[in-house]
Amino acid sequence: MTIEYDGGGFAGWQYQPRRRTLQGEIESALETMVGIPVRLAASGRTDAGVHAVGQVASFRCETRLSSATIQKGLNSMLDDDIVIRNCREVPESFHARFDAKGKTYHYHILNHELPSAILRRHVWFIRRPLDTAVMQEAADHLLGEHDFSAFEGAGSPRTHPIRTITQADFTKNADGIIVFRVSANGFLRFMVRNIVGSLVDVGQHKTTPTEFKKILDSRDRRRAGATAPPQGLFLMRVWYPEEEV
Amino acid sequence: MTIEYDGGGFAGWQYQPRRRTLQGEIESALETMVGIPVRLAASGRTDAGVHAVGQVASFRCETRLSSATIQKGLNSMLDDDIVIRNCREVPESFHARFDAKGKTYHYHILNHELPSAILRRHVWFIRRPLDTAVMQEAADHLLGEHDFSAFEGAGSPRTHPIRTITQADFTKNADGIIVFRVSANGFLRFMVRNIVGSLVDVGQHKTTPTEFKKILDSRDRRRAGATAPPQGLFLMRVWYPEEEV
Repeated sequence: MTIEYDGGGFAGWQYQPRRRTLQGEIESALETMVGIPVRLAASGRTDAGVHAVGQVASFRCETRLSSATIQKGLNSMLDDDIVIRNCREVPESFHARFDAKGKTYHYHILNHELPSAILRRHVWFIRRPLDTAVMQEAADHLLGEHDFSAFEGAGSPRTHPIRTITQADFTKNADGIIVFRVSANGFLRFMVRNIVGSLVDVGQHKTTPTEFKKILDSRDRRRAGATAPPQGLFLMRVWYPEEEV
Repeated sequence: MTIEYDGGGFAGWQYQPRRRTLQGEIESALETMVGIPVRLAASGRTDAGVHAVGQVASFRCETRLSSATIQKGLNSMLDDDIVIRNCREVPESFHARFDAKGKTYHYHILNHELPSAILRRHVWFIRRPLDTAVMQEAADHLLGEHDFSAFEGAGSPRTHPIRTITQADFTKNADGIIVFRVSANGFLRFMVRNIVGSLVDVGQHKTTPTEFKKILDSRDRRRAGATAPPQGLFLMRVWYPEEEV
């Protein structure tokens, strides 16, 4: 399944008792449809408040319902802040997390004298002007294979901090929002938001692209900037080998 | 003052006791700032759920606070679904409603097989395909001076149903949303939403541009289509004579 959601109303992807989570809502709707408990495997967890346009989740289940019927049924049962954009059968061996080859995230920054009432739920509002040229210069240091421990969330399990970033650029969308687009073969917890926090320090000339590179190389979490807030972050796409899905 | 708001959390512009309204929220914040009750005059009321990017409201008040201080103070006191985008002194004779020479509204339609979790609060989702070519053909009949009684909300006071529409066109924005842009020297209550409802009937070939023209000419409310929902409507701009503001 490919899933869009507005993260504002959720305590994140992962199931938690008595809290509204994506996994909890969708598993419970699925169970109602197929009559037995179903366990969803997502490409990865998104944190509380983070949005998705193209989250991918897989599940195994014996049912006579077609994937089109399941999609339609879920969309009619789920609240309107979750939309199942696609649902189809895949080879039994497919697993949304283990088979994911990469992900693309977008981070939205509104850099203006005034916040926006209309866009407030989907951007990080920053009043102080950002120099996106130096931010891009710093972001260029992210490209390639690195140990991203410096940008991992505190308290995360420290396995496997090596990732390869294949895209890290800034663009502006039609609303004048600064969009940071970042793709990698995987991301550590809070990695995008910690990178954005440190890039904003560069954009406000609190630090330099060279210093940013040193933070990355230090692998020291304490040297990175603040974590950017969740409402600017969108999981845009999960990449799989073409032959699989 | 020029005001942006996300209408989703309000029972409309106009003050109502014990309900959250734009006028109520802003007047109460103003009263806190200047120490005496202040009455706001808006360019016009927007209905419950309708948004604004450029609503204009004026007030008279003796105070030693500068307009910049008032703007800053209001923005720090008001919730983040209201933003005062501009605040400045105007000639004492100025009145936001009486001096308004025209308004521009945008109406957003998401015409797609699937709704959008992210955009749901700011669009009218219509699954069935819309033929925007015939919608434009129908909209062309709106241009110029007409009696718009056919598109007035039921139960509205029936004074003065003549208005002049100077723009009525369809375009698509970067998100693929159909945007209906309409400008006039003034609008009757529910007029934009009733026009959009009838244009959608044309776009779904339930009626024709010629029939749409007949509905307009009939001045009969009962012949128009359904009222489009409020969350797609944005008051974009209020126009004033240049010499005044």
